[in-house]
Amino acid sequence: MASKRPASPVTIESLNPKVLKCEYAVRGEIVSVAQKLQQDLQANPGSLPFEEILYCNIGNPQSLGQKPITFFREVLALCDHPCLLGKKETCSLFSADSIKRALTILDQMPGRATGAYSHSQGIKGLRDTIAAGIEARDGFPADPNDLFLTDGASPGVHMMMQLLIRSENDGILCPIPQYPLYSASIALHGGTLVRYYLDEATGWGLEISELNKQLETARQKGITVRALVVINPGNPTGQVLAEENQRQIVDFCKKEGLVLLADEVYQENVYAPDKKFNSFKKICRSMGYGDKDIPLVSFQSVSKGYHGECGKRGGYMEVTGFSPEVRDQFYKMASVNLCSNISGQILASLVMSPPKVYLALSLGYASHGELVTQAYIQVGDESYDSYFSERDGILKSLARRAKTLEDAFNGLEGVTCNKAEGAMYLFPRIQLPKKAIKAAEEAKKAADAYYAIRLLKDTGVVVVPGSGFGQVPGTWHFRCTILPQEDKIPAIISQLTDFHKKFMDEYRD
Amino acid sequence: MASKRPASPVTIESLNPKVLKCEYAVRGEIVSVAQKLQQDLQANPGSLPFEEILYCNIGNPQSLGQKPITFFREVLALCDHPCLLGKKETCSLFSADSIKRALTILDQMPGRATGAYSHSQGIKGLRDTIAAGIEARDGFPADPNDLFLTDGASPGVHMMMQLLIRSENDGILCPIPQYPLYSASIALHGGTLVRYYLDEATGWGLEISELNKQLETARQKGITVRALVVINPGNPTGQVLAEENQRQIVDFCKKEGLVLLADEVYQENVYAPDKKFNSFKKICRSMGYGDKDIPLVSFQSVSKGYHGECGKRGGYMEVTGFSPEVRDQFYKMASVNLCSNISGQILASLVMSPPKVYLALSLGYASHGELVTQAYIQVGDESYDSYFSERDGILKSLARRAKTLEDAFNGLEGVTCNKAEGAMYLFPRIQLPKKAIKAAEEAKKAADAYYAIRLLKDTGVVVVPGSGFGQVPGTWHFRCTILPQEDKIPAIISQLTDFHKKFMDEYRD
Repeated sequence: MASKRPASPVTIESLNPKVLKCEYAVRGEIVSVAQKLQQDLQANPGSLPFEEILYCNIGNPQSLGQKPITFFREVLALCDHPCLLGKKETCSLFSADSIKRALTILDQMPGRATGAYSHSQGIKGLRDTIAAGIEARDGFPADPNDLFLTDGASPGVHMMMQLLIRSENDGILCPIPQYPLYSASIALHGGTLVRYYLDEATGWGLEISELNKQLETARQKGITVRALVVINPGNPTGQVLAEENQRQIVDFCKKEGLVLLADEVYQENVYAPDKKFNSFKKICRSMGYGDKDIPLVSFQSVSKGYHGECGKRGGYMEVTGFSPEVRDQFYKMASVNLCSNISGQILASLVMSPPKVYLALSLGYASHGELVTQAYIQVGDESYDSYFSERDGILKSLARRAKTLEDAFNGLEGVTCNKAEGAMYLFPRIQLPKKAIKAAEEAKKAADAYYAIRLLKDTGVVVVPGSGFGQVPGTWHFRCTILPQEDKIPAIISQLTDFHKKFMDEYRD
Repeated sequence: MASKRPASPVTIESLNPKVLKCEYAVRGEIVSVAQKLQQDLQANPGSLPFEEILYCNIGNPQSLGQKPITFFREVLALCDHPCLLGKKETCSLFSADSIKRALTILDQMPGRATGAYSHSQGIKGLRDTIAAGIEARDGFPADPNDLFLTDGASPGVHMMMQLLIRSENDGILCPIPQYPLYSASIALHGGTLVRYYLDEATGWGLEISELNKQLETARQKGITVRALVVINPGNPTGQVLAEENQRQIVDFCKKEGLVLLADEVYQENVYAPDKKFNSFKKICRSMGYGDKDIPLVSFQSVSKGYHGECGKRGGYMEVTGFSPEVRDQFYKMASVNLCSNISGQILASLVMSPPKVYLALSLGYASHGELVTQAYIQVGDESYDSYFSERDGILKSLARRAKTLEDAFNGLEGVTCNKAEGAMYLFPRIQLPKKAIKAAEEAKKAADAYYAIRLLKDTGVVVVPGSGFGQVPGTWHFRCTILPQEDKIPAIISQLTDFHKKFMDEYRD
């Protein structure tokens, strides 16, 4: 029997229902409203109660005025326009080590061309550099053949979901709150999101008992749980996992036969002095687990870190613990899209191998004839000092901004906010009055979305409602980045404070 | 009932079967063998009967020595490292119009930063430029809001397949032979590939009777055919569609309620003097069909054209003829991956708006007092001459290479090869002897794959077997790019000719 042709070939009803199910709050309704307001402001300056839209909804530092790291951009410019390397003016415009690095990278590329497709996993020489960077970070070997360079971390996450999810009977354990890429990707690939809740009371702690409970419940429903997603440092929650906790997580995955999907894109963003980032690969290896013991995928991105090169869409995944046959399937998937963009690939290598410096001993003979250390001298790349000061400046400023905003949130009526130990976000909890919740229900919005839209319309500050990330039912949050430049922070805080007071006065029960 | 946990968490058997089903010949077995041989050559020079691997398998011109267009790279370098714009040396290193263009582009970006995520569809100012380029090309309006900038054309194709395919009961009409991105993407999204055959005898003609026949057959099997893919100029077949044929295709889609997916990435690669590229958008509008009449998606890429900027992963799709609700879903899909890479976005705008020149009239008074044209003078961008000569040099050389290789293929025993009117490939047909087909069967390979692997091992020349693109059963082909630099072509032809003679001598029935 011939199937019927629809009157209009493409309607909402005739689209893939998995697409319809997918949600992505970070660029959802709130951003559409913000864009509309921005247009209004441009068309009629002074027509709104604020002068500019302050985008605190997304980890996009350079859009808010953060400057790129000079060394990275020098290398990118030279690789893209290698004619410069033959010009005498270039030595005065570029650092010696950026010139040297560009020459090295060009030698690693087919045709010395950033305009050529590379190996599907990324340029081998760049993967060598990244592997060396991982080794230096972890103290354990890394194999360039385990690396798949990607256009940011997102395509890698999609690829893993596509490989692992066969039907709605396959589940992926995800933290709640979570970065909505995970829920979106699981929905798009037709799997089941298996929620585990982070414990807000213990600073968004990840409890193994909770993992066990949710795994068991999912299995009882007939779900085959295939993987555990851990975001460390956390997004939107900002916690940095303790080493002991990471060991427990690894053992849980090993015992339960789960792939460990480790979102480690904020590995360079740690602000709490008593916290340190440990990659799950390092944890596994330090526990004596080798490549055969546990399937582990670590995602890294050039969009985050101190450099925040979001627009470059660079990143990689390090894939260990899979059989060669399964790896062949990863390779095939990477091949269908040919390769990730070469500037992003170069940047991923730079991020994992920035300018270096080391201390050398200057030796001499003392008056009594003995060989002694006369001085320590700093030896290294010409760019190191500027690189270090740029990086350090950004990270210290982010730490200050995180603390200032955290304190400000905690000073608001009915708001409690955990510390941002790392990442780029605060995720304060708001105790909303019943009257506000009712007003939101009437407006057919989640209560925190109602709050966020009101905040935007009153102040121009864009935050993402907690409901977009998931939260314990009945609790309300929003995610606010720590990324506006420091001179903007006081105004943001005062606007937020005024708004919050007004909102609470309006709705207080 | 709890589902069982597999002994090893991830096996081939436990992967998504859609992934297993997907094939991608352009980077398949032949490329793995080539990479292995290249390693052997590096380790033991002189150990093989050839000195280098000649990659004729993929449209990747810069990997084979083609130089990028200077103007494009000047703009990219300046946008990535805007510090240069403040330096006096820059004026001697860069053209005036590249500096001006970079300044314009920087002004269009949030934070003036190539390191910031953009609008999910791409930077608005760049979309304005691209829309103006489309209007200039077609003579019909283009709306920047219809443009979705993508990391090359592939992600756009995947997005459309993801939106349209609900189950294996949804089919997509694809040409055979086809670029395997389409079959791979349909397999990954679980749809049904509905083949229509191009007619080799009429220069890979696209017959409406064939479309009707295959559509009817598919419908009788209960398949809902949702879209028609047309690749123009053709890949791997190189034909350029005639305007009248395009009108028939548009009417077919309109009558049958199909989305027209127009792969137009080779629009700048037309070599036959009597042929001209017409976009399907222009054809539709010239037939009087507006936005409400036919859903049409046109894919464009910076990877192809004369510039061949494959590694930049830039491109766009122009999406017209969908309802606002459906468009919202496209936007949501684009948002889940945040945005395409900004260098690729910039390049897409440059490709659609390269340096320009126009003729101005110089007027004066003749001796009898009448106003007359004294001279035509060329007015325009400083880069225009170098841009034109680079572009023209590449396109003319590609046309020569296409003709030389076509003639060479047609000179081989049992080989017939249609003209490459456009694109970057030849797709010669080989009449293989029965003995060769039998030897291939014994080696468990398609006969043309057997031929291609033998060719590679004997000569270092990498071509893709026709079976990777699809072909009329019982016929055998291979795809060979026209991209090796001209000084390499004679050696390739002589190696191919020698190999073919030897192969035929060995297997002649």
